[in-house]
Amino acid sequence: MVTKPAKAAPDTARRSEKSRRAIYEAALALVGEVGYPRTTIEGIAARAGVGKQTIYRWWGSKADVLLEAFLDLGEQSAREAGASDQEPYAIPDTGDLAADIKAVLRATVDQLKDPRFEAPARALAAEGVVDEEAGRRFTSALMEPNIQLYVDRLRSAQEAGQVRPGIDPRIALEFFISPLAQRWLQYTGPISYDYTDTLVEYALYGLAPR
Amino acid sequence: MVTKPAKAAPDTARRSEKSRRAIYEAALALVGEVGYPRTTIEGIAARAGVGKQTIYRWWGSKADVLLEAFLDLGEQSAREAGASDQEPYAIPDTGDLAADIKAVLRATVDQLKDPRFEAPARALAAEGVVDEEAGRRFTSALMEPNIQLYVDRLRSAQEAGQVRPGIDPRIALEFFISPLAQRWLQYTGPISYDYTDTLVEYALYGLAPR
Repeated sequence: MVTKPAKAAPDTARRSEKSRRAIYEAALALVGEVGYPRTTIEGIAARAGVGKQTIYRWWGSKADVLLEAFLDLGEQSAREAGASDQEPYAIPDTGDLAADIKAVLRATVDQLKDPRFEAPARALAAEGVVDEEAGRRFTSALMEPNIQLYVDRLRSAQEAGQVRPGIDPRIALEFFISPLAQRWLQYTGPISYDYTDTLVEYALYGLAPR
Repeated sequence: MVTKPAKAAPDTARRSEKSRRAIYEAALALVGEVGYPRTTIEGIAARAGVGKQTIYRWWGSKADVLLEAFLDLGEQSAREAGASDQEPYAIPDTGDLAADIKAVLRATVDQLKDPRFEAPARALAAEGVVDEEAGRRFTSALMEPNIQLYVDRLRSAQEAGQVRPGIDPRIALEFFISPLAQRWLQYTGPISYDYTDTLVEYALYGLAPR
């Protein structure tokens, strides 16, 4: 009797990694082209050139595949942008809050304009708008970790005396992310570094005279 | 020979008004139930109990019908909220900028939670996310007039010395509308009067200590 190996042999691992990547790419391409409701596990499998059992072995649903594919895409972008493997999404803490938030928002602008990201991200966002359960799931998996980084950075700024003590970081961070998100989702205005830099200045120093 | 009357007779006008209202209601209900792509002029006509030629006589496309139906719904809500017929959407100018913006945002919170509004508004917003041309059209017809009211109110506050002279009102207004829009579109947090009141305080006085 042959016992099951604790780890897959190198060849199997390499083959699995190749299939996994093909599945991610197929899932993102397909949802961008036909939308979330018409994307199926069968369609992803056919496009990736794998059997659908391969997909069901690793994931429970098309939402699971897509969420992982997006997380992987985000990690790839972060690596290309020179982030460390350990903390691809950290917000820098140089002590200069305005500069640190501006840098992160500029990276977000780049990501929103990245064609690999745009079509699948829009398909997922659109589904979330009309399907509350899906929307909450996408937000929780894809946005909450990022939101938490803003909360942490704003708390550290509060401890450093750069943000007023009474401010709730969970609300304050929306001045940085929500205007950009709305311009992207609803075409309420153009997206640029100048724009996000301005948001940071206005948010920190307020609209009323000092 | 009978000349065409310049105005429809009272009976015809009443019948037309009844059909128009039935068409608006059918269009909003249908798009909320089946989504924008599967809403058709034929479906709206059947549900409203009118011939589809009646719809084509007044509107060029389903987008046209829906945009008018939304504008009508907004006017109805404004009338129910006690706004004057002349300026249903004006932002008050009592001289207290914070109070005026808070009042308008509280009305927006009520609208976002109005079940007549929610499903059709989500269907339209979702289509706009994936179809840029439709999205720009919806934003231009349904959001820009409202955005312009904020621009006007902020300019008047600037003239009164309540907003810093260098601030661009077109960007500043996003601190009031975008966080609320993102919470509604992406479920990033709960929506309440307390929340929108807080947005106004933070936006006017900034996050950094004074």
